[in-house]
Amino acid sequence: METPNLRLGVIGAGFVGRAFVQLLTDPSRQVALVDGANATLEIVGVAVRDTTTPREGIDPSLLVDDPLALAAREDVDILVELAGGTDPTRSWIETALHRGASVVTANKALMAECGTELARLAHDNGADLLYEASVAGGIPIIRALRTSLAGEKINRVLGIVNGTTNFILSQMTSEGRDYAEALAEAQALGYAEADPTADVEAFDAAAKVQILSSLAIGTALHGEAISREGIAKVRAVDVDFARRAGYVIKLIGVVERVGEHGLSRRTHPALIPLEHPLAAVHGAMNAVFVEGDKSGPLMWLGQGAGGEPTATAVMGDVLHAARNRASGRHDVPFSVDDRLTNVDEGDLTSVYYLSLDVLDEPGVLAQVAGVFGRHEVSIQSMEQSGFGSEARLSFLTHEARARDVSSTLDELDQLASVDSIGACIRVIDGGGA
Amino acid sequence: METPNLRLGVIGAGFVGRAFVQLLTDPSRQVALVDGANATLEIVGVAVRDTTTPREGIDPSLLVDDPLALAAREDVDILVELAGGTDPTRSWIETALHRGASVVTANKALMAECGTELARLAHDNGADLLYEASVAGGIPIIRALRTSLAGEKINRVLGIVNGTTNFILSQMTSEGRDYAEALAEAQALGYAEADPTADVEAFDAAAKVQILSSLAIGTALHGEAISREGIAKVRAVDVDFARRAGYVIKLIGVVERVGEHGLSRRTHPALIPLEHPLAAVHGAMNAVFVEGDKSGPLMWLGQGAGGEPTATAVMGDVLHAARNRASGRHDVPFSVDDRLTNVDEGDLTSVYYLSLDVLDEPGVLAQVAGVFGRHEVSIQSMEQSGFGSEARLSFLTHEARARDVSSTLDELDQLASVDSIGACIRVIDGGGA
Repeated sequence: METPNLRLGVIGAGFVGRAFVQLLTDPSRQVALVDGANATLEIVGVAVRDTTTPREGIDPSLLVDDPLALAAREDVDILVELAGGTDPTRSWIETALHRGASVVTANKALMAECGTELARLAHDNGADLLYEASVAGGIPIIRALRTSLAGEKINRVLGIVNGTTNFILSQMTSEGRDYAEALAEAQALGYAEADPTADVEAFDAAAKVQILSSLAIGTALHGEAISREGIAKVRAVDVDFARRAGYVIKLIGVVERVGEHGLSRRTHPALIPLEHPLAAVHGAMNAVFVEGDKSGPLMWLGQGAGGEPTATAVMGDVLHAARNRASGRHDVPFSVDDRLTNVDEGDLTSVYYLSLDVLDEPGVLAQVAGVFGRHEVSIQSMEQSGFGSEARLSFLTHEARARDVSSTLDELDQLASVDSIGACIRVIDGGGA
Repeated sequence: METPNLRLGVIGAGFVGRAFVQLLTDPSRQVALVDGANATLEIVGVAVRDTTTPREGIDPSLLVDDPLALAAREDVDILVELAGGTDPTRSWIETALHRGASVVTANKALMAECGTELARLAHDNGADLLYEASVAGGIPIIRALRTSLAGEKINRVLGIVNGTTNFILSQMTSEGRDYAEALAEAQALGYAEADPTADVEAFDAAAKVQILSSLAIGTALHGEAISREGIAKVRAVDVDFARRAGYVIKLIGVVERVGEHGLSRRTHPALIPLEHPLAAVHGAMNAVFVEGDKSGPLMWLGQGAGGEPTATAVMGDVLHAARNRASGRHDVPFSVDDRLTNVDEGDLTSVYYLSLDVLDEPGVLAQVAGVFGRHEVSIQSMEQSGFGSEARLSFLTHEARARDVSSTLDELDQLASVDSIGACIRVIDGGGA
């Protein structure tokens, strides 16, 4: 049987696009690639904004400046979209899918916004829509959820899915930096953008949580906002308290099944016990920790960003799409479970770390403790440290309802003896590992 | 289109077999399973030695006592082999494959012995041979290597793939136990067999290393012996020295590319730096750390044994085989790279931890250091501790060749002032995380 030839159109030639083209054209990899694809792979065009700028490792004759035309080319079997953004990117992907070409994308924002609709479009046209690189860069978590864990009931997913914030928090932990210093360092090293909002306010992590949730639990991807809290309020004193208490602070994305059909999806900083495998995820690394009903805890760790790691995820998808083409099939889209409903976040329970700056006067602690008690938030441990005329009170609570903690803090904020509320950060349990 | 019905024959009803049958027949999972398989799945027989013993969760009318007849049944589409052993298990699998049925197995010993031949037989008959559960229980590492990393060049794999030895070493580390105590504890808890040889002498880990190597690098599976060293000689003092020096001792399986076509496969205890992700793999957990050329470091962590976790891996394979059946295709077997050759283990270099008990007399250290120097083994650090008339010398070397370390120890062993050589354990570098 002759080996079929498949033609690829690539949109975007940034770090990931260049690394992907270089991987695909590397002579020493051709045997493995043909073997993995059951086909020879040929790039017929790379769409870029400016075709006159030379791109290292890309044959200049391949550069084109019209991504829509590339997506529409009848001889492109697989469109590889690495440009990012939602508009007009969506129209390029739709154009390719409409005519039955498969699409491989790293676009988390677009998948979070309209992944269910795009997946349906792919299916209706007998094509694949694959997006391994959209979550946690080079870590093959998407395929694992779609295949190896397809028959498993997943109860919770905890992800460190944003390398920028993990780098910042790691520097605060290991070097004792405060947030502003660590952010500046991340910017200097190229880990954080000049405008770091998407990372530090957890927009990026939230999109990834939605994609993980769709595969782990079966939620639709149609741009629903989820509960989102970033790391800008995490202070050096919080990191320090956490370490003394046996924890490390991480920004986590959470997908959690609550009861039979309840669901919580959220991002927030959390205290992770030092013995939990996620606590050992340092620097810009990413990890996804999955708690399956029967599989028990599973964790994937790797580089969440970077041109080459992300390009290997794109390549895995391209080989998969190619094998499917060669055998005239395509993956079925993940199924959406219509019975799932978002639970009220106020009803969720957690252990909390709370920090208050109060006047260092007799009776203040009793007053504060009284407020906790009235709202049924019970205290597990307390630490008091004085500075001048003030004192800092740091509490770990027992398991408490979010709405009760919230009303506790509201009432504390009214007290004349409470100067400020410094921290309210959830604590993650166990880990089973 | 009507959903096809696929028929399964199961051989073995131990922990994994029972957990698998229970998963497959759990009413709450039927929707997800049909969805994952693109088919309904029906068990037509479970082969056991004694059909009169009731098996929890298995309909007694399914029990049969002739595994070969079950494998030969024309209406069995997928044979699930969970009995273990190589003879007569091999004939059951061959019987099923010969008639074009797919086979899912957890049998590491059989795969290591004749995996290449069985995979070829499957391919020639248009069937799948899947064995996710044969390595690291519930961790979906096999599928990741076959699919997501198919186009990646893998330079090294380090695996903690034996839960029993990891439990023993973890207890020695966290509780200060000596080897015999920790082994007895593992036996009492059911983590170790009455005869622990397969685990502690690393026969089990060696089989898994061979399977990982076949997928990561492309070696054939035909029962070749690999370099194997177990944990029985690891002492409490070694664990203690490692901790003080910033390491933890683990039994690791290694697959390593050396140069273009050289290869080393081996199992041995190793000092792992505390900041390496593998150092955080505690108790009976398993983990596989993969160093890809472009992907960078990747790690999978999870439960390496246990009925339910292993059954989820078996289920992932069954769903995959079922989807393939439904679309009339099968996976191509991994390719064997005939250019690979085993390197001489004596040529490999590593940092070493060495421990000697010597007479506490003037001039002994100079004498010992002289031997190191003559064999070109250079010392990075040394610690001396005295007990009675003896002293213990603990060394970390610089990078040294295995044959030089070996000849150093041979000459040291001849010295009258050297009472015994206590430890010679390799040190793993970095981790990149």
